Amino acid sequence: MLALIEAGSPALAAARALLAEAPAAFLLDRAAVTLRAPIPRPRRNVFCVGRNYMEHVAEGDRTRGITQSEVPKYPQFFTKAPECVIGPEETVPAHAGVTQWLDYEVELAVVIGKEGRDIPRERALDHVFGYTIGNDVTGRDLQRRHGQWFKGKSLDRSCPLGPCIVPAEDLDASDLAIRLWVNGEKRQDSRTSKMIFDVKEIIHQLSAGFTLRPGDVILTGTPEGVGYAMQPPRTLRPGDVMELEIEGIGRLRNAVAAD
Amino acid sequence: MLALIEAGSPALAAARALLAEAPAAFLLDRAAVTLRAPIPRPRRNVFCVGRNYMEHVAEGDRTRGITQSEVPKYPQFFTKAPECVIGPEETVPAHAGVTQWLDYEVELAVVIGKEGRDIPRERALDHVFGYTIGNDVTGRDLQRRHGQWFKGKSLDRSCPLGPCIVPAEDLDASDLAIRLWVNGEKRQDSRTSKMIFDVKEIIHQLSAGFTLRPGDVILTGTPEGVGYAMQPPRTLRPGDVMELEIEGIGRLRNAVAAD
Repeated sequence: MLALIEAGSPALAAARALLAEAPAAFLLDRAAVTLRAPIPRPRRNVFCVGRNYMEHVAEGDRTRGITQSEVPKYPQFFTKAPECVIGPEETVPAHAGVTQWLDYEVELAVVIGKEGRDIPRERALDHVFGYTIGNDVTGRDLQRRHGQWFKGKSLDRSCPLGPCIVPAEDLDASDLAIRLWVNGEKRQDSRTSKMIFDVKEIIHQLSAGFTLRPGDVILTGTPEGVGYAMQPPRTLRPGDVMELEIEGIGRLRNAVAAD
Repeated sequence: MLALIEAGSPALAAARALLAEAPAAFLLDRAAVTLRAPIPRPRRNVFCVGRNYMEHVAEGDRTRGITQSEVPKYPQFFTKAPECVIGPEETVPAHAGVTQWLDYEVELAVVIGKEGRDIPRERALDHVFGYTIGNDVTGRDLQRRHGQWFKGKSLDRSCPLGPCIVPAEDLDASDLAIRLWVNGEKRQDSRTSKMIFDVKEIIHQLSAGFTLRPGDVILTGTPEGVGYAMQPPRTLRPGDVMELEIEGIGRLRNAVAAD
Protein backbone atom coordinates (compact mmCIF):
# COMPACT_ATOMS: atom_id res chain seq x y z
CA MET A 1 0.00 0.00 0.00
CA LEU A 2 2.84 2.42 0.80
CA ALA A 3 4.38 1.67 -2.60
CA LEU A 4 1.04 2.31 -4.33
CA ILE A 5 0.60 5.60 -2.48
CA GLU A 6 4.17 6.71 -3.23
CA ALA A 7 3.74 5.93 -6.92
CA GLY A 8 1.07 8.62 -7.09
CA SER A 9 -2.04 9.11 -9.25
CA PRO A 10 -0.80 7.09 -12.26
CA ALA A 11 -0.47 4.00 -10.05
CA LEU A 12 -3.96 4.38 -8.65
CA ALA A 13 -5.32 4.90 -12.17
CA ALA A 14 -3.50 1.75 -13.35
CA ALA A 15 -4.95 -0.23 -10.43
CA ARG A 16 -8.44 1.01 -11.30
CA ALA A 17 -7.96 0.03 -14.96
CA LEU A 18 -6.84 -3.48 -14.02
CA LEU A 19 -9.85 -3.87 -11.77
CA ALA A 20 -12.22 -2.64 -14.49
CA GLU A 21 -10.74 -5.04 -17.04
CA ALA A 22 -10.99 -8.17 -14.95
CA PRO A 23 -13.01 -7.58 -11.77
CA ALA A 24 -13.41 -11.31 -11.12
CA ALA A 25 -9.64 -11.74 -10.85
CA PHE A 26 -9.66 -9.56 -7.76
CA LEU A 27 -12.53 -11.24 -5.95
CA LEU A 28 -11.42 -13.04 -2.82
CA ASP A 29 -13.43 -15.17 -0.44
CA ARG A 30 -13.78 -12.83 2.57
CA ALA A 31 -13.77 -15.77 4.99
CA ALA A 32 -10.47 -17.02 3.59
CA VAL A 33 -8.49 -13.82 4.11
CA THR A 34 -7.30 -11.92 7.14
CA LEU A 35 -7.87 -8.21 6.80
CA ARG A 36 -4.83 -6.28 7.97
CA ALA A 37 -4.60 -2.55 8.63
CA PRO A 38 -4.52 -0.72 5.28
CA ILE A 39 -1.09 0.61 6.32
CA PRO A 40 0.14 -2.04 8.77
CA ARG A 41 3.30 -0.15 9.69
CA PRO A 42 3.47 3.57 8.87
CA ARG A 43 6.99 4.86 8.18
CA ARG A 44 6.79 7.20 11.14
CA ASN A 45 4.48 8.03 14.02
CA VAL A 46 0.78 8.49 13.37
CA PHE A 47 -0.06 12.18 13.72
CA CYS A 48 -3.10 13.01 15.84
CA VAL A 49 -5.19 16.09 16.57
CA GLY A 50 -6.67 16.60 20.04
CA ARG A 51 -9.77 18.55 21.13
CA ASN A 52 -11.13 19.03 17.60
CA TYR A 53 -14.90 18.72 18.19
CA MET A 54 -16.42 21.38 20.46
CA GLU A 55 -18.75 19.01 22.33
CA HIS A 56 -15.76 16.78 23.08
CA VAL A 57 -13.76 19.77 24.33
CA ALA A 58 -16.70 20.64 26.61
CA GLU A 59 -17.16 17.11 27.98
CA GLY A 60 -13.43 16.93 28.76
CA ASP A 61 -13.51 20.33 30.46
CA ARG A 62 -16.47 19.24 32.61
CA THR A 63 -14.41 16.36 34.04
CA ARG A 64 -12.04 19.04 35.34
CA GLY A 65 -14.81 21.26 36.69
CA ILE A 66 -14.73 23.75 33.78
CA THR A 67 -18.26 24.66 32.69
CA GLN A 68 -17.47 27.44 30.17
CA SER A 69 -15.28 25.99 27.44
CA GLU A 70 -13.26 28.10 25.06
CA VAL A 71 -12.99 27.22 21.39
CA PRO A 72 -9.35 26.19 20.77
CA LYS A 73 -7.48 28.76 18.67
CA TYR A 74 -4.89 26.31 17.35
CA PRO A 75 -4.97 22.54 16.79
CA GLN A 76 -3.07 20.36 19.27
CA PHE A 77 -0.82 17.79 17.59
CA PHE A 78 0.64 14.67 19.20
CA THR A 79 1.67 11.24 17.92
CA LYS A 80 1.29 7.49 18.38
CA ALA A 81 4.20 5.15 17.52
CA PRO A 82 3.90 3.27 14.19
CA GLU A 83 3.84 -0.10 15.99
CA CYS A 84 0.60 0.89 17.73
CA VAL A 85 -1.24 0.23 14.47
CA ILE A 86 -3.31 -2.95 14.34
CA GLY A 87 -5.83 -4.26 11.83
CA PRO A 88 -9.57 -4.90 11.93
CA GLU A 89 -9.27 -8.45 13.21
CA GLU A 90 -6.78 -7.86 16.01
CA THR A 91 -7.40 -7.17 19.68
CA VAL A 92 -6.49 -4.15 21.79
CA PRO A 93 -4.77 -5.22 25.05
CA ALA A 94 -6.41 -3.97 28.26
CA HIS A 95 -2.94 -3.02 29.59
CA ALA A 96 -4.33 -3.65 33.07
CA GLY A 97 -0.93 -3.33 34.73
CA VAL A 98 -0.33 0.09 33.21
CA THR A 99 -3.67 1.91 32.96
CA GLN A 100 -6.86 1.72 34.99
CA TRP A 101 -8.75 3.77 32.46
CA LEU A 102 -8.67 2.57 28.87
CA ASP A 103 -10.87 4.53 26.49
CA TYR A 104 -11.89 4.63 22.80
CA GLU A 105 -12.02 7.50 20.27
CA VAL A 106 -13.45 7.15 16.76
CA GLU A 107 -11.63 9.41 14.28
CA LEU A 108 -11.52 10.14 10.57
CA ALA A 109 -8.00 9.17 9.44
CA VAL A 110 -6.41 11.05 6.55
CA VAL A 111 -3.74 9.30 4.47
CA ILE A 112 -1.30 11.68 2.80
CA GLY A 113 -0.54 10.97 -0.87
CA LYS A 114 1.77 13.76 -1.93
CA GLU A 115 4.79 15.29 -0.21
CA GLY A 116 4.48 18.91 0.83
CA ARG A 117 5.49 21.61 3.28
CA ASP A 118 3.79 24.94 4.03
CA ILE A 119 0.73 23.66 2.20
CA PRO A 120 -1.91 26.38 1.70
CA ARG A 121 -5.47 25.57 2.79
CA GLU A 122 -6.80 25.77 -0.74
CA ARG A 123 -4.38 23.13 -2.01
CA ALA A 124 -4.47 20.88 1.06
CA LEU A 125 -6.84 18.27 -0.36
CA ASP A 126 -4.48 17.73 -3.35
CA HIS A 127 -2.17 16.09 -0.80
CA VAL A 128 -4.72 13.55 0.43
CA PHE A 129 -4.57 10.01 -0.95
CA GLY A 130 -7.64 8.82 0.91
CA TYR A 131 -9.49 8.24 4.13
CA THR A 132 -9.86 5.44 6.64
CA ILE A 133 -11.05 5.03 10.25
CA GLY A 134 -8.77 5.23 13.27
CA ASN A 135 -9.44 4.36 16.90
CA ASP A 136 -7.25 6.54 19.14
CA VAL A 137 -7.28 4.16 22.12
CA THR A 138 -6.08 6.05 25.19
CA GLY A 139 -5.00 5.37 28.77
CA ARG A 140 -6.77 8.38 30.35
CA ASP A 141 -4.91 8.24 33.66
CA LEU A 142 -1.56 8.18 31.83
CA GLN A 143 -2.67 10.95 29.46
CA ARG A 144 -3.56 13.19 32.36
CA ARG A 145 -0.68 12.57 34.74
CA HIS A 146 2.13 12.79 32.18
CA GLY A 147 0.95 16.20 30.91
CA GLN A 148 2.07 15.65 27.34
CA TRP A 149 -0.18 13.01 25.81
CA PHE A 150 2.27 10.65 24.08
CA LYS A 151 2.49 8.25 27.02
CA GLY A 152 -1.27 7.75 27.36
CA LYS A 153 -1.77 7.63 23.60
CA SER A 154 0.96 5.24 22.54
CA LEU A 155 0.42 1.97 24.37
CA ASP A 156 1.24 -1.11 22.30
CA ARG A 157 -1.54 -2.03 19.84
CA SER A 158 -3.59 1.05 20.73
CA CYS A 159 -4.28 2.27 17.19
CA PRO A 160 -6.76 0.13 15.23
CA LEU A 161 -6.87 1.34 11.62
CA GLY A 162 -9.12 0.29 8.75
CA PRO A 163 -11.05 -1.46 7.33
CA CYS A 164 -9.89 0.08 4.03
CA ILE A 165 -8.68 3.33 2.48
CA VAL A 166 -11.26 5.08 0.30
CA PRO A 167 -9.46 7.22 -2.30
CA ALA A 168 -10.05 10.94 -1.85
CA GLU A 169 -11.36 11.21 -5.42
CA ASP A 170 -14.23 8.92 -4.41
CA LEU A 171 -15.17 10.56 -1.10
CA ASP A 172 -15.89 14.08 0.11
CA ALA A 173 -15.01 13.75 3.80
CA SER A 174 -16.28 17.14 4.88
CA ASP A 175 -19.66 16.02 6.26
CA LEU A 176 -19.78 12.31 7.07
CA ALA A 177 -21.62 10.55 9.88
CA ILE A 178 -19.08 9.27 12.45
CA ARG A 179 -20.19 6.81 15.14
CA LEU A 180 -18.93 4.33 17.73
CA TRP A 181 -20.61 1.54 19.68
CA VAL A 182 -19.32 -0.46 22.67
CA ASN A 183 -20.99 -3.88 22.94
CA GLY A 184 -23.75 -2.58 20.69
CA GLU A 185 -24.45 0.53 22.81
CA LYS A 186 -24.03 3.73 20.81
CA ARG A 187 -21.53 6.04 22.51
CA GLN A 188 -20.40 8.48 19.84
CA ASP A 189 -22.58 9.90 17.05
CA SER A 190 -21.57 13.07 15.23
CA ARG A 191 -20.57 14.40 11.81
CA THR A 192 -17.13 15.31 10.45
CA SER A 193 -18.53 18.75 9.58
CA LYS A 194 -18.36 19.53 13.31
CA MET A 195 -14.56 19.52 13.38
CA ILE A 196 -13.18 22.80 14.76
CA PHE A 197 -10.19 22.54 12.37
CA ASP A 198 -11.24 20.81 9.15
CA VAL A 199 -8.99 18.51 7.11
CA LYS A 200 -7.71 21.43 5.01
CA GLU A 201 -6.77 23.46 8.09
CA ILE A 202 -5.14 20.48 9.82
CA ILE A 203 -2.91 19.81 6.79
CA HIS A 204 -2.16 23.52 6.42
CA GLN A 205 -1.10 23.94 10.05
CA LEU A 206 0.68 20.61 10.50
CA SER A 207 2.75 21.21 7.35
CA ALA A 208 3.98 24.63 8.48
CA GLY A 209 7.76 24.22 8.48
CA PHE A 210 7.24 20.45 8.50
CA THR A 211 7.26 18.18 5.45
CA LEU A 212 4.35 15.77 5.15
CA ARG A 213 5.13 12.58 3.21
CA PRO A 214 3.19 9.99 1.23
CA GLY A 215 1.86 7.35 3.60
CA ASP A 216 1.62 9.66 6.60
CA VAL A 217 -1.53 9.05 8.62
CA ILE A 218 -3.32 11.86 10.47
CA LEU A 219 -6.11 11.15 12.96
CA THR A 220 -8.35 14.22 13.00
CA GLY A 221 -9.85 14.14 16.49
CA THR A 222 -12.86 12.52 18.11
CA PRO A 223 -16.39 13.79 18.80
CA GLU A 224 -18.16 13.71 22.19
CA GLY A 225 -19.16 10.50 23.92
CA VAL A 226 -15.86 9.11 25.21
CA GLY A 227 -16.06 6.85 28.24
CA TYR A 228 -14.14 8.97 30.74
CA ALA A 229 -16.57 11.87 30.32
CA MET A 230 -19.73 9.79 30.86
CA GLN A 231 -21.73 10.04 34.09
CA PRO A 232 -20.56 7.82 35.72
CA PRO A 233 -17.29 7.37 33.79
CA ARG A 234 -16.91 4.11 31.88
CA THR A 235 -13.71 2.25 31.13
CA LEU A 236 -13.07 -0.47 28.55
CA ARG A 237 -12.72 -3.99 29.93
CA PRO A 238 -11.49 -7.27 28.45
CA GLY A 239 -14.18 -8.71 26.20
CA ASP A 240 -15.64 -5.32 25.24
CA VAL A 241 -16.18 -4.90 21.51
CA MET A 242 -15.72 -1.50 19.87
CA GLU A 243 -17.40 -0.86 16.53
CA LEU A 244 -16.51 2.32 14.67
CA GLU A 245 -18.28 3.56 11.57
CA ILE A 246 -17.73 6.43 9.20
CA GLU A 247 -20.21 6.97 6.38
CA GLY A 248 -18.74 5.99 3.02
CA ILE A 249 -15.75 4.16 4.54
CA GLY A 250 -17.16 1.24 6.51
CA ARG A 251 -16.90 -0.36 9.92
CA LEU A 252 -13.86 -1.08 12.07
CA ARG A 253 -14.42 -3.62 14.83
CA ASN A 254 -11.92 -4.54 17.56
CA ALA A 255 -12.32 -6.37 20.82
CA VAL A 256 -10.41 -5.65 24.02
CA ALA A 257 -8.29 -8.60 25.15
CA ALA A 258 -7.03 -9.42 28.63
CA ASP A 259 -3.54 -8.60 27.34
CA MET B 1 24.60 1.83 12.66
CA LEU B 2 21.03 0.51 13.08
CA ALA B 3 22.21 -2.90 11.84
CA LEU B 4 25.10 -2.86 14.31
CA ILE B 5 22.79 -1.94 17.17
CA GLU B 6 20.23 -4.58 16.22
CA ALA B 7 22.91 -7.27 16.04
CA GLY B 8 23.52 -6.77 19.75
CA SER B 9 26.57 -7.17 21.99
CA PRO B 10 28.35 -9.78 19.81
CA ALA B 11 28.42 -7.32 16.92
CA LEU B 12 29.86 -4.54 19.03
CA ALA B 13 32.47 -6.95 20.45
CA ALA B 14 33.39 -8.03 16.91
CA ALA B 15 33.76 -4.39 15.84
CA ARG B 16 36.00 -3.73 18.82
CA ALA B 17 38.13 -6.78 18.00
CA LEU B 18 38.57 -5.64 14.39
CA LEU B 19 39.60 -2.20 15.56
CA ALA B 20 42.11 -3.64 18.06
CA GLU B 21 43.67 -5.90 15.40
CA ALA B 22 44.22 -3.24 12.79
CA PRO B 23 43.61 0.24 14.16
CA ALA B 24 45.32 1.93 11.23
CA ALA B 25 42.81 0.42 8.80
CA PHE B 26 40.07 2.46 10.44
CA LEU B 27 41.87 5.80 10.46
CA LEU B 28 40.28 8.33 8.14
CA ASP B 29 41.39 11.82 7.28
CA ARG B 30 38.86 13.91 9.23
CA ALA B 31 38.97 16.67 6.61
CA ALA B 32 38.07 14.21 3.88
CA VAL B 33 34.89 12.87 5.43
CA THR B 34 31.49 14.34 6.19
CA LEU B 35 30.26 13.40 9.62
CA ARG B 36 26.60 12.42 9.51
CA ALA B 37 24.27 11.93 12.45
CA PRO B 38 25.15 8.62 14.15
CA ILE B 39 21.59 7.49 13.33
CA PRO B 40 20.70 9.60 10.30
CA ARG B 41 17.12 8.36 10.10
CA PRO B 42 15.65 6.65 13.17
CA ARG B 43 12.99 4.04 12.38
CA ARG B 44 10.38 6.04 14.26
CA ASN B 45 9.99 9.36 16.02
CA VAL B 46 12.66 10.51 18.45
CA PHE B 47 11.24 10.29 21.98
CA CYS B 48 11.76 13.33 24.20
CA VAL B 49 11.30 14.20 27.86
CA GLY B 50 10.20 17.70 28.86
CA ARG B 51 10.77 19.63 32.11
CA ASN B 52 13.38 17.22 33.47
CA TYR B 53 15.79 19.62 35.22
CA MET B 54 14.30 21.60 38.12
CA GLU B 55 16.04 24.89 37.29
CA HIS B 56 14.67 24.63 33.74
CA VAL B 57 11.17 23.95 35.09
CA ALA B 58 11.52 27.07 37.26
CA GLU B 59 12.81 29.33 34.46
CA GLY B 60 9.92 28.21 32.24
CA ASP B 61 7.40 28.81 35.02
CA ARG B 62 8.78 32.34 35.56
CA THR B 63 7.99 33.26 31.93
CA ARG B 64 4.35 32.51 32.82
CA GLY B 65 4.44 34.43 36.11
CA ILE B 66 4.75 31.35 38.31
CA THR B 67 7.33 31.91 41.06
CA GLN B 68 6.81 28.73 43.14
CA SER B 69 7.49 25.74 40.91
CA GLU B 70 6.35 22.24 41.72
CA VAL B 71 8.59 19.26 41.08
CA PRO B 72 6.95 17.22 38.28
CA LYS B 73 5.57 13.90 39.57
CA TYR B 74 5.72 12.15 36.19
CA PRO B 75 7.91 12.66 33.11
CA GLN B 76 6.32 14.35 30.10
CA PHE B 77 6.94 12.50 26.84
CA PHE B 78 6.58 13.92 23.34
CA THR B 79 8.23 13.20 19.98
CA LYS B 80 10.08 14.71 17.02
CA ALA B 81 9.67 13.15 13.55
CA PRO B 82 12.61 10.99 12.34
CA GLU B 83 13.30 13.36 9.44
CA CYS B 84 14.11 16.15 11.90
CA VAL B 85 17.45 14.48 12.57
CA ILE B 86 20.49 16.17 11.03
CA GLY B 87 24.20 15.64 11.47
CA PRO B 88 27.01 17.70 12.97
CA GLU B 89 27.85 19.51 9.75
CA GLU B 90 24.34 20.49 8.71
CA THR B 91 22.45 23.69 9.38
CA VAL B 92 19.20 24.26 11.27
CA PRO B 93 16.77 26.42 9.24
CA ALA B 94 15.56 29.59 10.96
CA HIS B 95 12.00 28.78 9.78
CA ALA B 96 11.36 32.54 9.78
CA GLY B 97 7.97 32.20 8.12
CA VAL B 98 6.73 29.76 10.75
CA THR B 99 8.27 30.73 14.10
CA GLN B 100 9.45 34.03 15.53
CA TRP B 101 11.11 32.32 18.44
CA LEU B 102 13.59 29.57 17.61
CA ASP B 103 15.44 28.16 20.60
CA TYR B 104 18.07 25.54 21.49
CA GLU B 105 18.15 22.76 24.12
CA VAL B 106 21.20 20.59 24.85
CA GLU B 107 20.20 17.08 25.91
CA LEU B 108 21.79 13.74 26.71
CA ALA B 109 20.46 11.33 24.05
CA VAL B 110 20.03 7.67 24.95
CA VAL B 111 20.19 5.06 22.17
CA ILE B 112 18.26 1.88 22.95
CA GLY B 113 20.08 -1.38 22.20
CA LYS B 114 17.72 -4.10 23.32
CA GLU B 115 13.98 -4.51 22.85
CA GLY B 116 11.86 -4.40 25.98
CA ARG B 117 8.53 -3.52 27.54
CA ASP B 118 7.66 -2.88 31.20
CA ILE B 119 11.38 -2.61 31.92
CA PRO B 120 12.13 -2.41 35.67
CA ARG B 121 14.38 0.45 36.84
CA GLU B 122 17.11 -1.93 37.97
CA ARG B 123 17.41 -3.51 34.51
CA ALA B 124 16.91 -0.33 32.48
CA LEU B 125 20.57 0.28 31.68
CA ASP B 126 20.84 -3.22 30.14
CA HIS B 127 18.67 -1.82 27.35
CA VAL B 128 20.98 1.10 26.54
CA PHE B 129 23.34 0.75 23.58
CA GLY B 130 25.02 4.09 24.14
CA TYR B 131 24.82 7.85 24.44
CA THR B 132 25.08 10.82 22.13
CA ILE B 133 24.12 14.52 22.19
CA GLY B 134 20.83 15.89 20.91
CA ASN B 135 19.73 19.48 20.31
CA ASP B 136 15.97 19.73 20.80
CA VAL B 137 15.53 22.84 18.64
CA THR B 138 12.12 24.36 19.37
CA GLY B 139 9.76 27.00 17.99
CA ARG B 140 8.67 28.42 21.37
CA ASP B 141 5.66 30.32 20.02
CA LEU B 142 4.39 27.18 18.27
CA GLN B 143 5.09 25.03 21.34
CA ARG B 144 3.04 27.35 23.52
CA ARG B 145 0.08 28.09 21.27
CA HIS B 146 -0.55 24.52 20.11
CA GLY B 147 -0.74 23.20 23.68
CA GLN B 148 0.70 19.79 22.86
CA TRP B 149 4.36 20.27 21.96
CA PHE B 150 4.78 18.21 18.78
CA LYS B 151 4.19 21.17 16.45
CA GLY B 152 6.83 23.40 18.05
CA LYS B 153 9.26 20.53 18.47
CA SER B 154 9.13 18.91 15.05
CA LEU B 155 10.10 21.53 12.49
CA ASP B 156 12.15 20.18 9.60
CA ARG B 157 15.84 19.69 10.48
CA SER B 158 15.26 20.67 14.12
CA CYS B 159 17.07 17.73 15.74
CA PRO B 160 20.87 17.83 15.42
CA LEU B 161 22.31 14.56 16.74
CA GLY B 162 25.94 13.54 17.26
CA PRO B 163 28.88 13.72 16.95
CA CYS B 164 29.11 9.99 17.83
CA ILE B 165 27.56 7.29 19.99
CA VAL B 166 29.65 6.30 23.00
CA PRO B 167 28.79 2.70 24.00
CA ALA B 168 27.14 2.45 27.40
CA GLU B 169 29.84 0.03 28.56
CA ASP B 170 32.36 2.85 28.14
CA LEU B 171 30.41 5.66 29.80
CA ASP B 172 28.55 6.14 33.07
CA ALA B 173 26.10 8.89 32.07
CA SER B 174 24.74 9.55 35.54
CA ASP B 175 26.83 12.64 36.34
CA LEU B 176 28.29 14.30 33.25
CA ALA B 177 28.87 17.99 32.57
CA ILE B 178 26.36 19.22 29.97
CA ARG B 179 26.85 22.63 28.31
CA LEU B 180 25.79 24.79 25.40
CA TRP B 181 27.24 27.93 23.84
CA VAL B 182 25.72 30.32 21.28
CA ASN B 183 28.36 32.22 19.31
CA GLY B 184 30.86 31.36 22.03
CA GLU B 185 28.68 32.69 24.88
CA LYS B 186 27.91 30.01 27.45
CA ARG B 187 24.16 29.66 27.92
CA GLN B 188 23.64 26.23 29.53
CA ASP B 189 25.95 24.61 32.09
CA SER B 190 24.72 21.80 34.31
CA ARG B 191 25.23 18.12 35.11
CA THR B 192 23.18 15.10 34.08
CA SER B 193 22.93 14.17 37.78
CA LYS B 194 20.42 17.02 38.10
CA MET B 195 17.78 15.23 36.03
CA ILE B 196 14.50 14.91 37.93
CA PHE B 197 13.87 11.52 36.24
CA ASP B 198 17.16 9.76 35.57
CA VAL B 199 17.86 7.53 32.55
CA LYS B 200 16.71 4.42 34.44
CA GLU B 201 13.40 6.03 35.43
CA ILE B 202 12.80 7.42 31.94
CA ILE B 203 13.25 3.97 30.38
CA HIS B 204 11.13 2.37 33.09
CA GLN B 205 8.23 4.79 32.62
CA LEU B 206 8.40 5.12 28.83
CA SER B 207 8.39 1.33 28.42
CA ALA B 208 5.27 0.82 30.55
CA GLY B 209 2.89 -0.92 28.15
CA PHE B 210 5.06 0.30 25.29
CA THR B 211 7.81 -1.70 23.57
CA LEU B 212 11.15 0.07 23.15
CA ARG B 213 13.20 -1.13 20.17
CA PRO B 214 16.88 -1.20 19.21
CA GLY B 215 17.78 2.09 17.55
CA ASP B 216 15.18 4.14 19.42
CA VAL B 217 16.54 7.52 20.50
CA ILE B 218 15.39 9.23 23.70
CA LEU B 219 16.30 12.86 24.47
CA THR B 220 16.32 13.22 28.23
CA GLY B 221 15.49 16.88 28.76
CA THR B 222 17.45 20.11 28.93
CA PRO B 223 18.88 22.09 31.87
CA GLU B 224 18.29 25.81 32.54
CA GLY B 225 19.60 28.55 30.29
CA VAL B 226 17.32 28.37 27.25
CA GLY B 227 16.91 31.58 25.26
CA TYR B 228 13.22 32.21 25.84
CA ALA B 229 13.68 32.31 29.61
CA MET B 230 16.56 34.83 29.52
CA GLN B 231 16.07 38.46 30.61
CA PRO B 232 15.45 39.79 28.02
CA PRO B 233 14.49 36.70 25.98
CA ARG B 234 16.86 35.75 23.18
CA THR B 235 15.97 34.00 19.95
CA LEU B 236 18.24 32.20 17.49
CA ARG B 237 18.97 34.06 14.25
CA PRO B 238 20.52 33.05 10.93
CA GLY B 239 24.29 32.85 11.34
CA ASP B 240 24.16 31.90 15.03
CA VAL B 241 26.36 28.94 15.93
CA MET B 242 25.27 26.49 18.63
CA GLU B 243 27.92 24.33 20.30
CA LEU B 244 26.78 21.56 22.59
CA GLU B 245 29.07 19.52 24.81
CA ILE B 246 28.59 16.54 27.05
CA GLU B 247 31.55 15.26 29.04
CA GLY B 248 32.83 11.98 27.64
CA ILE B 249 30.87 12.25 24.40
CA GLY B 250 32.18 15.31 22.59
CA ARG B 251 30.91 18.44 20.88
CA LEU B 252 28.03 18.95 18.48
CA ARG B 253 28.14 22.16 16.47
CA ASN B 254 25.41 23.46 14.18
CA ALA B 255 24.78 26.85 12.64
CA VAL B 256 21.40 28.40 12.01
CA ALA B 257 20.78 29.06 8.30
CA ALA B 258 18.42 31.59 6.69
CA ASP B 259 16.32 28.59 5.60
